[in-house]
This record gives sequence, C-alpha cells and structure tokens, in this order.
Amino acid sequence: MLLNKIEAVREEVKKYKKEGYKIGLVPTMGALHEGHLSLIRRARKECDRVVVSVFVNPIQFGPSEDFDKYPRTLEADTSLCEKEGVDIVFAPSPSEMYGEGNRLSNDTLTYVCPPFFYVNKLCGKSRVGHFDGVCTVVNKLFNIVQPDIAFFGQKDAQQVVIIRKMVKDLNIPIEIIQCPIVREESGLALSSRNKYLSEEDKKEALVLSRILNNIKICYNKGVTDVSALKETAYSYLTDKHDLEYLEIVDKDTLEEKAKADDNTIVLIACRISGVRLIDNIYLK
Amino acid sequence: MLLNKIEAVREEVKKYKKEGYKIGLVPTMGALHEGHLSLIRRARKECDRVVVSVFVNPIQFGPSEDFDKYPRTLEADTSLCEKEGVDIVFAPSPSEMYGEGNRLSNDTLTYVCPPFFYVNKLCGKSRVGHFDGVCTVVNKLFNIVQPDIAFFGQKDAQQVVIIRKMVKDLNIPIEIIQCPIVREESGLALSSRNKYLSEEDKKEALVLSRILNNIKICYNKGVTDVSALKETAYSYLTDKHDLEYLEIVDKDTLEEKAKADDNTIVLIACRISGVRLIDNIYLK
Repeated sequence: MLLNKIEAVREEVKKYKKEGYKIGLVPTMGALHEGHLSLIRRARKECDRVVVSVFVNPIQFGPSEDFDKYPRTLEADTSLCEKEGVDIVFAPSPSEMYGEGNRLSNDTLTYVCPPFFYVNKLCGKSRVGHFDGVCTVVNKLFNIVQPDIAFFGQKDAQQVVIIRKMVKDLNIPIEIIQCPIVREESGLALSSRNKYLSEEDKKEALVLSRILNNIKICYNKGVTDVSALKETAYSYLTDKHDLEYLEIVDKDTLEEKAKADDNTIVLIACRISGVRLIDNIYLK
Repeated sequence: MLLNKIEAVREEVKKYKKEGYKIGLVPTMGALHEGHLSLIRRARKECDRVVVSVFVNPIQFGPSEDFDKYPRTLEADTSLCEKEGVDIVFAPSPSEMYGEGNRLSNDTLTYVCPPFFYVNKLCGKSRVGHFDGVCTVVNKLFNIVQPDIAFFGQKDAQQVVIIRKMVKDLNIPIEIIQCPIVREESGLALSSRNKYLSEEDKKEALVLSRILNNIKICYNKGVTDVSALKETAYSYLTDKHDLEYLEIVDKDTLEEKAKADDNTIVLIACRISGVRLIDNIYLK
C-alpha cells in the first residue's frame, strides 16, 4: 500500500504493533535497484511487516549537489516493492516531512547531529552537513514507523557507522542490520547515481572496485602498511578519474590506522565525468 | 522501584506496554520540590504508570556553571516519589547515560540540536549549548522510557517550547504536557536552586515575580507597547539584582513582539547574590 501521509503510516503501524508484529524499515531515496531489493528481501525474512520509505531528502543535499536531478521513479519503485511483498511504501512530500514553507536550515529546524569525529572525514569532508541531514531524516523515519529493525546497505558504509552511533548515543530501541554491497557482474557497485553514467563512463567507473580488490589482495598477501596499500591504487588512475579520497580505517570507529588488520575497511570516492561514485570493501 | 540501569527500565516498560498501560514520564534533575510533585500528580492522574527520572545531566551545564554543587538528594527524592505512587524512579549514573570515559562533547557524541532561532535568546544566550544538552538527554530519556506523555514545568518555559519543537520536528510520538509554576506564598517560584539562597536573598528574589505581576497588571489596564511594559520593571531593581534579561515574546514561537497580546509570555532572569533565578508569566 502506498501512503503519503505520516498519520496514515502511524495508524497502519499501530495495527501491526497491536498484533505484535515485528516491523522492518528500509529507508531509501527511491530509484530502487537490486541493492535496495536485497535489503527488502532481508527485511522480509527477518520481519512480519516491511515498510519501505521513498524520500529524496532535501536536507542531506548540499546547495551545489544533485537534489533536483536525482532520479525519481516512484511508480516503478512501488511496483517493485509490491512484487517483493512490501506492506507499506511511504513516500511523503518534502512539505509533509518538514512543514509547508519552512526554510530548511538549523535556524528553524531541530537537527540530529552526529559527532564531528565521525563526520569530518571521508564523504563528510566534501559533503558538509550531509550526515546531519541523514541522521535527522532517519531519526524522523524511526519515530514515524517505530520499526524493530532498520536495514541499510554497506555501500554507504560511513552512513551506517554514523547511524549505529546515533542509535547507541540516543538509546534508540531499534536494531540496525547492514546488508552487503550488490554489484554488477563487472564489479561496479549498484547505485541510483549510476543512471548518470554513459557506457564509456561505466567502464571507467570499474576503477573503484578494482582498486579496492587489489588492496584486499595485497593485504591477504601480507602487506599491512597503510601507505603502501594506498600506493597500489595509483597505477589504476588516469585523468578520467578524479579521486576524492581513498582511506583505510577502522570499520567500526572510522579511526585512521597505520597498519591494516581484520577490522579494517577501505573506502573510495571518485568522480567519473563529474558523477561522484563511492565504494568500499572489508579487508576480512 | 529505584532503577539505575537503562536495560532494567526497558524491561519494566516492556511489561507496561504489554498490558497496554499508558506511561507518563517526569524528567527531573532531582532535588524534588512541590513543583516537581505537581508534575508527578498530574502524571498520576493522566497515566497508568509513572516514571520519574532523576539525573543531573552534565552536558547541559556550561564549564563555569553549578554542575558540581547542584543539590543531589536521591534518598529524599525516592521517598517523595514513593509517597506519590511513582512506579519507577530512574536514577542513572553519568556513565550509564553517556558511556564510560567518554569525553562529553559534540566531537564524540551525537547531539540533538534545537534550531538557532529558539536558542539564541533568553536563557540560551548566556547558557551556550545548554539546550543542545537538554534536547539530547530528553531525547535519550524518551527513547529509554517510551512514554505516552511527558510532563514539564512552565518555570522553564523556553525549555518546554524547545522540547515541543523537537517533538514536532522529529515526529516523536509523545504528548507534551506543561504544568503551571508552583510558588511559595511569597510569590517566589519554586526552584531547586533556591537552596543556594539565604533568607535575605529570598526576599530580594521576590523582585522577579513582582516585576512579572506588575507587567501583567499594566497589560490588563491596556498597556501593550512592549518597551513601555519593560520600563515598568526598572523601579523594582536595585544593586542587589543583576538583571540578565527581561523579554516579552510570543509564547509559542519566542518571537519578539512590538505589542503584547494574549499570546504573550514575559520572561525574566536575574542573579541574586550570584544565584541565577528565572521566572515567567503568561499575559492571558
């Protein structure tokens, strides 16, 4: 069932709670692909009722980012959700979420702000305010749907670490489950932003997963020095690849390391023809 | 029942939820007085189960404020709660709430940050970060206790406006009830910080309620010009009274007004012998 209003979701959820159903939430920005579907299938497996939110959240986009052109495909999303047995697709308007005519800023809205230590690095460095917007909307969705479990993709690994930290710091009574990255056969991590890429770009975009895989191979061969591991990337990069970051950090705390170990994650962000892509891999 | 652990509260609350009980939460910093008891009695009336939290929240105190000397009277508080039929007194340690050895700052903790517009005025002006600390701890308590209704005193009027704003902005499924200020016969608003006052100081402290009452009298006589209303205060003030602010604003939005009306609140903060006291009055 497709619902646009917060109150309608609350009413439906109330019925689920009364029945003692376990509720799963899959928060998305729509433009659903197999990555999202893997989250939905996991939710379907773990929970009695599954809610998928589809909301392109204005407050997590910077002023020069792709909020306006971000793909919106609600009809296709709804029919995919239906096929997967989703119980509620919650697709609110921005004004339903943030009020009519509200200027969307921390001058007028309450924000949930993750700690600087988790935010001042990786994607947060170039996307100032992004994770405040993410935590705020996820917190709102949590309060609206009150799920038992919420499902997030490993593709946005920093996001999941930050949301887990929010859940812990604010004592939110919700379990967070992270699902693995889904890739094309080529190795390209699925992303709604892949729609911006030409066929040519997509070939160039393989550099991300190749760099990550090669670092993992080197690690498995015994290289643990982080600088040495990073250096293995440079032979892959050409002037088609505008590398934003390549970092090797603790998978739970995002702390920098001098030596990689089994708790390490490698994250990369790179622009291909102006399209910002991210990817990551666990070393274990 | 006195509980110190978050998990113990969750377990107890789970039982209440299973029974379909309506749960009321009265968040306090302890040092309970008749003002708090009026909140508890209201909660008792509205709810099936009442939880009182007693927690002197470190992150809402500034570095030069009275966190260390703030009165802590848990034994007396617990026995008062017992007499009032409170079901749970939740009195966690700072480390239970914020983790062992955590540096308590927005570098390491997720904060809930109310909008600047509500914070950059009145008490928020001199108490930088105070309302971030308040919203964060109240959000945590809401997530731990999951009450149907939470009760706050009008004495901290700005706090209640900010908490209502947080509840609205973050879609928190909790009703907020504000209860009137309780006063000594003299007119002095009850406050845990009154314990810092000598008998002499308490007499001087009456200036707060006198100024407020006189402004209301003037308003009822037809004076609506805010500057004129404020000026009526100055005849009351001597060098014993260190006025921090006297503001006449909209009771729901805290917006400044040129003309007072029935939606107006008058708020005052004043130091007596170094003790910071606040009070307020609705013009209607």
